Amino acid sequence: MALIVQKYGGTSVGSLERITNVARKVIQHRGQGHDVVVVVSAMSGETDRLLRLAKEIDPHPNEREVDVLLSTGEQVTIALLAITLNKLGCPARSYTGAQVRILTDDAHTKARILDIDEERVRRDLNEGKVVIVAGFQGVDANGNITTLGRGGSDTTGVALAAALKADECQIYTDVDGVYSTDPRVVPNARRLDRITFEEMLEMASLGSKVLQIRSVEFAGKYSVPLRVLSSLVEGPGTLITYEDAQMEQPLISGIAFNRDEAKLTIVGVPDQPGVAYRILGPIGEANIEVDMIVQNVGADGTTDFTFTVHRNDFDKAMGILKNISNTLKAREVKGDNKIVKVSLVGVGMRSHAGIASKMFRALADHGINIQMISTSEIKISVVVDEKYLELGVRALHDSFGLEQKPEVAR
Amino acid sequence: MALIVQKYGGTSVGSLERITNVARKVIQHRGQGHDVVVVVSAMSGETDRLLRLAKEIDPHPNEREVDVLLSTGEQVTIALLAITLNKLGCPARSYTGAQVRILTDDAHTKARILDIDEERVRRDLNEGKVVIVAGFQGVDANGNITTLGRGGSDTTGVALAAALKADECQIYTDVDGVYSTDPRVVPNARRLDRITFEEMLEMASLGSKVLQIRSVEFAGKYSVPLRVLSSLVEGPGTLITYEDAQMEQPLISGIAFNRDEAKLTIVGVPDQPGVAYRILGPIGEANIEVDMIVQNVGADGTTDFTFTVHRNDFDKAMGILKNISNTLKAREVKGDNKIVKVSLVGVGMRSHAGIASKMFRALADHGINIQMISTSEIKISVVVDEKYLELGVRALHDSFGLEQKPEVAR
Repeated sequence: MALIVQKYGGTSVGSLERITNVARKVIQHRGQGHDVVVVVSAMSGETDRLLRLAKEIDPHPNEREVDVLLSTGEQVTIALLAITLNKLGCPARSYTGAQVRILTDDAHTKARILDIDEERVRRDLNEGKVVIVAGFQGVDANGNITTLGRGGSDTTGVALAAALKADECQIYTDVDGVYSTDPRVVPNARRLDRITFEEMLEMASLGSKVLQIRSVEFAGKYSVPLRVLSSLVEGPGTLITYEDAQMEQPLISGIAFNRDEAKLTIVGVPDQPGVAYRILGPIGEANIEVDMIVQNVGADGTTDFTFTVHRNDFDKAMGILKNISNTLKAREVKGDNKIVKVSLVGVGMRSHAGIASKMFRALADHGINIQMISTSEIKISVVVDEKYLELGVRALHDSFGLEQKPEVAR
Repeated sequence: MALIVQKYGGTSVGSLERITNVARKVIQHRGQGHDVVVVVSAMSGETDRLLRLAKEIDPHPNEREVDVLLSTGEQVTIALLAITLNKLGCPARSYTGAQVRILTDDAHTKARILDIDEERVRRDLNEGKVVIVAGFQGVDANGNITTLGRGGSDTTGVALAAALKADECQIYTDVDGVYSTDPRVVPNARRLDRITFEEMLEMASLGSKVLQIRSVEFAGKYSVPLRVLSSLVEGPGTLITYEDAQMEQPLISGIAFNRDEAKLTIVGVPDQPGVAYRILGPIGEANIEVDMIVQNVGADGTTDFTFTVHRNDFDKAMGILKNISNTLKAREVKGDNKIVKVSLVGVGMRSHAGIASKMFRALADHGINIQMISTSEIKISVVVDEKYLELGVRALHDSFGLEQKPEVAR
């Protein structure tokens, strides 16, 4: 008998019929002898509807009050699920974030969980009840309602699992697991049985939006085994867990990509200390997040400095860069908002050489020009023209044989 | 400078535009130097929508969870009003029932307020803020969300006013006050400037549904001056207060009526002790509320026993009465679900004789047969055929000159 925390997203609870499906899944797990804690999001579309109301009144609505407003979305779902479970003969109790006492800081609309008082949940579990907790929300030390920001329900699930020392935190979504890459781009992409927290973090931050990054970080930090599965079809999903020293890891787990990239280059900057800061300082002050950064030193004592930003920030960043360019006496400023980033991710590359060159050759074989390269311990990213996105991803997927189960023992 | 508690019902906050109107009214009162606490209901239709969802799942949904569900309705309104006030430059904070700590018993869906911790509200008022509280809801001693039953927002307003020792509790509705009778029946019905708590209770319980009965009881008990006014048109409304010994009261304040009545008679019951109990016991056990009760003793040692119930309960009550009839060896059981009740209400009748006979004559002059009579200290009720309702109410309104301001000094 295990203690399982299950989290169901907005699509999974988007109608009374789907809520009934969720209830049946919960009852099925209880029938297997498990204790079940359920975390739910607002019904799909509800959070957006509420936020639209607030913004119709004020484009920058008071954030404390936005949290009061948005938190009703999950509260409706917990009540409807509890009513359904009780109707089906399964005793269940619902709790808001404030009731469970998911204590957060007071950063309204993007609060962080500080502590969870799991006593109430344990008491109900001991009485044989299913406990349903509203995701996405908490309460600050002064009793004000807070929300965790978009996707925060995943974080609630993981945090509850950590506090309860649950055996597994199951995240139900509309996909049946984590894939070697996006199946819409590579039809024979393969569902991964397991993936490490680190790989998942790279995949998630690179645009495979199955899980919210913060929840994966949280799960990794507290060693909560995380499983992504579909609320609609049966299946084992993908288990996200620590790297197991007993098992060999596959070389590459997956290919992530990100379409919303733009690149800016300031050319011919006199190469002297502090240049990077003088370029990126004003960009950061304008709240523009910078992703990849590459700097090359030329022969003439000047340097070319290139970085990528989200495509939405391209125009703003170009404006700032042109100003800086004058001050720095740079030769030229160039920009390109028709680029994408493609990344190989795999913990196996730590102990294997030659992966980068294999990657570059696969791209070259298909006539794809690489514009930027950036590497980390478990990831190699390249920037290419956006027209090559699908071709590049397919070439790499094929070249590394990701459609097949890895040959190494798992 | 006064402390005013204002309560706005579902229609008054039924759209963002109306919420803006409410905000303007609040700001207007603040501009006059008053401290303002606002209690709001759910946007019109919202409570019904939520309840429909619950009943679609289960015709008898778990009541604890129904309260979790329904309480979101008011929570949305407090947030939207707070966002609006802040947008308009008026600092405001919203609180759910649980946050203010409106402590109730644990009778879900019909809880009663036990205590209010007004400290938080006072602190905000002292800081110059408008305080917005969700009506209709509270929290029990174990932290479970409760609701006060339909119309409970009025009770929240009055209870807050009592706890804060407010100078006035203003109940904003879609009518501009309490009328001498329903203006849809008597077009020249008059808005009353004042009415006593007792009169209001009789008017309310007799079907003039301006205010929830419990809130009037509560206001009377804690001497909270209550004012009913319109959220749409300007005007002084009607003040509900204690009888003022300094002022003479008008003879009659108003005429109430109730269309949803039905009458049952058990004829020729042997007149012996315990008969009334043996008839009404089973009716009460079936959760049927009995209103008027009349018993006449005949010459032959038998008695006729008549009572009225809500028209919805008529068939059920007839079935029970027929069973009882056999046991009691009664001669006959008769029923009529085409009757209505019309009542004169006025504290002045305490000190004036002859009102009943004047009432009966007015009805007789119009050929209206009286089927039952029941009196209390400040009320005379008659049951008549439903076809006489409008005629009877108009005759009485005219006969007692209620369209005019009372001649006595007020």
